[in-house]
Amino acid sequence: MERRNFLKSAALGVTGAALAAPMVNAQNATTLTIVSTWPRDFPGLGLSAQRLAQRIVEVSNGAIQTEYFAAGERVGAFDVFDEVASGNSQAYVAADYYWIGKHPGFAYFTSVPFGMTTPEWNSWIKFKGGQDLWDKLSGDFGLKALACGATGAQAGGWFNKEIISPDDLQGLKMRIPGLGGTVMSKLGVSTVSLPGGQIYENLVSGAVEATEWVGPYNDYFMKFYEAAKFYYTAGMHEPGGGLAFGMNASWWGSLSKYEQDVITACCYEEHAAQPEEAGALNGEYLARLVNDHGVEVRAFNEDVWDAFGDAAEEVFEETRDHSALAAEINDAFQAGLKEIGAWRAAAEIEFSNQRNRILGIA
Amino acid sequence: MERRNFLKSAALGVTGAALAAPMVNAQNATTLTIVSTWPRDFPGLGLSAQRLAQRIVEVSNGAIQTEYFAAGERVGAFDVFDEVASGNSQAYVAADYYWIGKHPGFAYFTSVPFGMTTPEWNSWIKFKGGQDLWDKLSGDFGLKALACGATGAQAGGWFNKEIISPDDLQGLKMRIPGLGGTVMSKLGVSTVSLPGGQIYENLVSGAVEATEWVGPYNDYFMKFYEAAKFYYTAGMHEPGGGLAFGMNASWWGSLSKYEQDVITACCYEEHAAQPEEAGALNGEYLARLVNDHGVEVRAFNEDVWDAFGDAAEEVFEETRDHSALAAEINDAFQAGLKEIGAWRAAAEIEFSNQRNRILGIA
Repeated sequence: MERRNFLKSAALGVTGAALAAPMVNAQNATTLTIVSTWPRDFPGLGLSAQRLAQRIVEVSNGAIQTEYFAAGERVGAFDVFDEVASGNSQAYVAADYYWIGKHPGFAYFTSVPFGMTTPEWNSWIKFKGGQDLWDKLSGDFGLKALACGATGAQAGGWFNKEIISPDDLQGLKMRIPGLGGTVMSKLGVSTVSLPGGQIYENLVSGAVEATEWVGPYNDYFMKFYEAAKFYYTAGMHEPGGGLAFGMNASWWGSLSKYEQDVITACCYEEHAAQPEEAGALNGEYLARLVNDHGVEVRAFNEDVWDAFGDAAEEVFEETRDHSALAAEINDAFQAGLKEIGAWRAAAEIEFSNQRNRILGIA
Repeated sequence: MERRNFLKSAALGVTGAALAAPMVNAQNATTLTIVSTWPRDFPGLGLSAQRLAQRIVEVSNGAIQTEYFAAGERVGAFDVFDEVASGNSQAYVAADYYWIGKHPGFAYFTSVPFGMTTPEWNSWIKFKGGQDLWDKLSGDFGLKALACGATGAQAGGWFNKEIISPDDLQGLKMRIPGLGGTVMSKLGVSTVSLPGGQIYENLVSGAVEATEWVGPYNDYFMKFYEAAKFYYTAGMHEPGGGLAFGMNASWWGSLSKYEQDVITACCYEEHAAQPEEAGALNGEYLARLVNDHGVEVRAFNEDVWDAFGDAAEEVFEETRDHSALAAEINDAFQAGLKEIGAWRAAAEIEFSNQRNRILGIA
């Protein structure tokens, strides 16, 4: 056999042997009901989740049919966990740190203070054992999650006054979920976790005086600027990580490898697309916030950052104390961060700093 | 109709109407022959391309069958462009900046000096018009490319002596392709472009005295440390961008939307995975280079960076002068960089700097 023909046969042989027929009409299709924590047609997060629901149908050529319910259309935003764990629906779209009341380990599968940025977290999840730990934790609740959607490093948030020293945080009422909220509470902030659709009314009424959400593009549509004029750039609380496509584990286990492959490919395609879309639009929307709505952009100074750092250290100690699994997840995460973050600091971050200095980008 | 039933019907209606049957056996399948610029089983780049070839079969459930030929198995590494443009094969895997001899605009669709990092470039390509310009340029050669694979910000490269001032570059013989090579030549470097499989022999023979490749994980297997001990962290020449899955445009146009969707989803899944895998492994392989092979890690100082910056400015002026299309691509790229890079500097990069300072990551 000639080499060319041998290679051709070998390549076909790998995958050509066992071809199952995908479904050809909607009656025979697998049905996937998705419940979401985001409001319908919500720019950024919501549109991304809706795009995923459609994409799974396209890429499976209709072999998987999806139904998508935004927050409140089938169950409330924070009820999606139980809805899927019970098998009532097959999957949720959410930030898994909404479930830290069930187990603090969930925080690491969205984003933790001073944690990994999205590219770092992706490396850890997909290629350094993060997914195994996520499976272990989710499995305890009858769930299987895949990374789907990410925000990139989030803005520090919206405040109705300037934060010049850590003292300015004392007594502040702020919407900030996850372990970032726990860090803030160490610094005297009175924190609350609210789904996206309920933040605006609480900010306008004064029930909260500050809030974080995502970044300029996502935040623009929330109209927080009507009640809080100071917008802080980088925050410590959600440096990246990712969002979750959380499936009922029994349902996932019942799928064919082909169906699992399609869902995984679509989740990972959208996991990349969501932060890329926000990255493309943040500059434009920041300009609108400043020029059209009088928003004042600020950065936390090093005193404030150092206070955040001290508080975060305490929070991680407490999180480890919760359980053996919490300690295992924390320690794997922190080790991954140091190993992955070090070369990134020397390459991507160092390049960015030099380029931004030379081109005057800031 | 109840709201829930209405939503369900609406969701199914969007995509349930026109279901085509995917192919169910290899005889009826679409065949996609891929020729690559990477050697077979090459860690990092090569394995990523092979993974893509297999993934397209899996995610299409065999409706698309792929054949993959590594560099030299069907055509030489740098002959893949003509092979695919002519329609002899359907797709190549390559860095499009290998084709700057055909048109300098191709550089922007891999990576240019002081250009966008991979997350920035992805935003530009997918959500800020970059793909349209890529299609325009590739279309002139009968090609259609999708982003597939990326390296992240590359290491400055391997040198057989330290680079302490720009004078140390004078007369140096270095393998460095793309516009990064043109920048180096402005500083007196004698540059050459060689495919990956030919660099080692040239470095060992002394035909070149320095080379860049990718980063610790990819570079480890090249054994460059046998001839050049100084390994530089961040370089100016390839800050990110992406690699190309370049298809014959007529063939792409002949595919069904379903087939295009599968190929796009698989390319974008792998586009994310490749740099994530390298990011996960760079730390480990850098340690091996240092501990097992006596590699000395260095960083370019600001004098050298400033010299790179001045030379790059000249190179971009010359590139614009090539043609109207080159100027259009350059200007769109530089505008995208400033708009996308500014918020990224304020959020992701500022966070990374503060975190790395506080946690002592470097």
